[in-house]
Amino acid sequence: MRRAVCPGSFDPVTHGHLDIFERAAGLFDEVVVAVGTNVSKTKLFTPDERIEMLREATSGFDNVRVDGFSGLLTDYCRKESIQAIIKGLRGGGDFEYEVQMAQMNSHLTGVETVFLPTSTTYAFVSSSLVKEVASLGGNIEGLLPDFVRERLLKRLAERASA
Amino acid sequence: MRRAVCPGSFDPVTHGHLDIFERAAGLFDEVVVAVGTNVSKTKLFTPDERIEMLREATSGFDNVRVDGFSGLLTDYCRKESIQAIIKGLRGGGDFEYEVQMAQMNSHLTGVETVFLPTSTTYAFVSSSLVKEVASLGGNIEGLLPDFVRERLLKRLAERASA
Amino acid sequence: MRRAVCPGSFDPVTHGHLDIFERAAGLFDEVVVAVGTNVSKTKLFTPDERIEMLREATSGFDNVRVDGFSGLLTDYCRKESIQAIIKGLRGGGDFEYEVQMAQMNSHLTGVETVFLPTSTTYAFVSSSLVKEVASLGGNIEGLLPDFVRERLLKRLAERASA
Amino acid sequence: MRRAVCPGSFDPVTHGHLDIFERAAGLFDEVVVAVGTNVSKTKLFTPDERIEMLREATSGFDNVRVDGFSGLLTDYCRKESIQAIIKGLRGGGDFEYEVQMAQMNSHLTGVETVFLPTSTTYAFVSSSLVKEVASLGGNIEGLLPDFVRERLLKRLAERASA
Amino acid sequence: MRRAVCPGSFDPVTHGHLDIFERAAGLFDEVVVAVGTNVSKTKLFTPDERIEMLREATSGFDNVRVDGFSGLLTDYCRKESIQAIIKGLRGGGDFEYEVQMAQMNSHLTGVETVFLPTSTTYAFVSSSLVKEVASLGGNIEGLLPDFVRERLLKRLAERASA
Amino acid sequence: MRRAVCPGSFDPVTHGHLDIFERAAGLFDEVVVAVGTNVSKTKLFTPDERIEMLREATSGFDNVRVDGFSGLLTDYCRKESIQAIIKGLRGGGDFEYEVQMAQMNSHLTGVETVFLPTSTTYAFVSSSLVKEVASLGGNIEGLLPDFVRERLLKRLAERASA
Repeated sequence: MRRAVCPGSFDPVTHGHLDIFERAAGLFDEVVVAVGTNVSKTKLFTPDERIEMLREATSGFDNVRVDGFSGLLTDYCRKESIQAIIKGLRGGGDFEYEVQMAQMNSHLTGVETVFLPTSTTYAFVSSSLVKEVASLGGNIEGLLPDFVRERLLKRLAERASA
Repeated sequence: MRRAVCPGSFDPVTHGHLDIFERAAGLFDEVVVAVGTNVSKTKLFTPDERIEMLREATSGFDNVRVDGFSGLLTDYCRKESIQAIIKGLRGGGDFEYEVQMAQMNSHLTGVETVFLPTSTTYAFVSSSLVKEVASLGGNIEGLLPDFVRERLLKRLAERASA
Repeated sequence: MRRAVCPGSFDPVTHGHLDIFERAAGLFDEVVVAVGTNVSKTKLFTPDERIEMLREATSGFDNVRVDGFSGLLTDYCRKESIQAIIKGLRGGGDFEYEVQMAQMNSHLTGVETVFLPTSTTYAFVSSSLVKEVASLGGNIEGLLPDFVRERLLKRLAERASA
Repeated sequence: MRRAVCPGSFDPVTHGHLDIFERAAGLFDEVVVAVGTNVSKTKLFTPDERIEMLREATSGFDNVRVDGFSGLLTDYCRKESIQAIIKGLRGGGDFEYEVQMAQMNSHLTGVETVFLPTSTTYAFVSSSLVKEVASLGGNIEGLLPDFVRERLLKRLAERASA
Repeated sequence: MRRAVCPGSFDPVTHGHLDIFERAAGLFDEVVVAVGTNVSKTKLFTPDERIEMLREATSGFDNVRVDGFSGLLTDYCRKESIQAIIKGLRGGGDFEYEVQMAQMNSHLTGVETVFLPTSTTYAFVSSSLVKEVASLGGNIEGLLPDFVRERLLKRLAERASA
Repeated sequence: MRRAVCPGSFDPVTHGHLDIFERAAGLFDEVVVAVGTNVSKTKLFTPDERIEMLREATSGFDNVRVDGFSGLLTDYCRKESIQAIIKGLRGGGDFEYEVQMAQMNSHLTGVETVFLPTSTTYAFVSSSLVKEVASLGGNIEGLLPDFVRERLLKRLAERASA
């Protein structure tokens, strides 16, 4: 079985992520979306919340499952019999940043990193930019699933009034 | 009327910024220098101080005015009937970073982002690098207007003795 | 009057070009599409044919006109009172290539070069790639105006049977 | 069955190519090495010679087969039920060049392009550089299989004495 | 005497650094490894500890010496009669980041910055990535000298139990 | 003795080249400007003409000498006891192109390649662009030595009337 992982923080999941998941699911027998669960105060959603939203957003895919992981991604790949790490690439600069990690991961356990160019439609969509726009009152419809958008707006409102 | 905006924090204004303002002023009927006024502890000067220095530094330009803005830049552009956001580009890496924001802004309201290559003379001048050099005692003459340099050195001295 | 030029060979015009023309037309009072008419055996269409197609394709724009030019672009800009050269940018690599020419042009006459990021929709559309795909029998519908596509396919068929 | 293609001219095959084939063979059920057979006077070896060398060089891989193709790569992928095109990436500049083709191919038939970073060991090895070094008398041992090196040196000697 | 400096934080020294030192030592009469000693809470080792490890790691080089510096690097270069600053380059993105500093330093005192491409063997090795891998339990053997690895693991263990 | 080489075609020498020679001459005991003398119909000047112009242009430097070479640059370096190849870098894209050759040269004989960022003043000056501008009647004063400019204009006039 050919198994690949899409690692990330997904804080929260966007249509850019879902596009990569869908394309990865067409290339591998199983795709694991792996949410880093290291404790971090800078995240808007808890790991459990992010996993829960991902599970709902990917429920339409037969061969995509969502999991959390901590520690080294390469250890997780070995434990789960994953042959490939999938990364979306926006541009050449992204690649330079990611290739260092890819070479380290290959050095550690031989796991491959596979790069997919982001869809032109979602090239400008990232979780951090969506959060920034939303926090300033911008319209983020269409950039992430509706139920995720609603949870994001609710959370930002809670934070603002805290 | 063709109106463009040069957004930034300008903490403080340098000759690199002024070069972009001057060239933008030759391309558009009016250029608005818009200072982001979101509260931030990491800035050396307050928004009012930065606006004041920009006003003095751009007083020689007929069609440049200085303003503050908070919230989304695209909302500000709509409110002020601005058609173009102007960004200076140092290199290809700058572009990759800026293009994501440009595409988001175009998605939000259709406002264009226009890139001008930085003048070769000022390619290495940025506010943060000028502040770093000045704080370590380096000579920053010629990199920013004299009155700005004096205020910068005074502020750094105050900070150091605080 | 704010006047800009979109220079190129346009062999033939694509929707990627038209997108840049339209956006430039929203930023400047007049946009001149300037076709380089230096003799070249590697072009598929003659300068007159390319100008003719551009005129038809841009007939819906009030402030866009099409012209041919030979010699230095900066001389043409001076003669036509053009303040800005407009270039579409696909990525950081494009910028590095174009910025050398931009700096030379600025050195020669002070004319500015203004970069617009290509629309995400047409980022992959270039005349040369469209010609290559069409010559191999690929479907190029939607990548260029229908009447241009028909002329392109006819010309390629003539070449193949020649 | 997950099937991927490694397209190229392979004039001739190097250890850099073989490294990509091997890694691709670990990710997909079958990997097709597809040699472009368009007539070209600039190649050192004929398509048949290149295919023959590739077959010998890849004989140790169970799930790699070598084929020739002409016309559009996307048509070949559709005919052969190939889901992914595999490309090695040396750096960010490579990516910018390749991504335009990847987006065109995705537009044409939806086929995915998957990028693998070149192994650090072979990052500097390309057919054209190996040919250049060999033609100037440089030592190319270890950069390509021994039997390919011998055929390359023999061909270069024939060319030089022609 | 031709004298060059390799500045950095070296927190801690890796085989990637040592590779650059060795190659620099073959190009200049004397190479000074200069450790920035500005107070910083984010470093794992104190300046003295970093200098001590560097001295041990470079004891085999005749013309390499280790020093600490604070303040402007260009002032240090002037004081020590150093003509060149040496920087390793991983990729084009690294260059864009470093060239701004290089141009500033050249502006300040005329000191040259000389770039050496990182060895392909160590392209993925950086202090920060090594620390991240080690802190997550990954195997970092071969990426830095053994005695440095031991001190790093000991320090990380102390931190984790603090 | 520390000896470095600046290889190139120098067709013809520009102030951009001379700037690199001067800076290299400050870093090494001797700098050899090595003109590739492989026969090529695309050059404007013969190897002897290019060498002659370089000798005149560099006559003011004590430790710069001009030579021709054919064959592998690494063989030339070995024969002439040269430890370093010097290359000017305009941007990140230049680096990606050059680093492959640098790694091949290091693989062949261990010779180092050292990159110097081009001076901001001459970043846009290349022989090919200067020739293009001159052939279209543009003013190239200040971009190359006066006597070289005169020879270039004379040669272009001869070519045009041939």
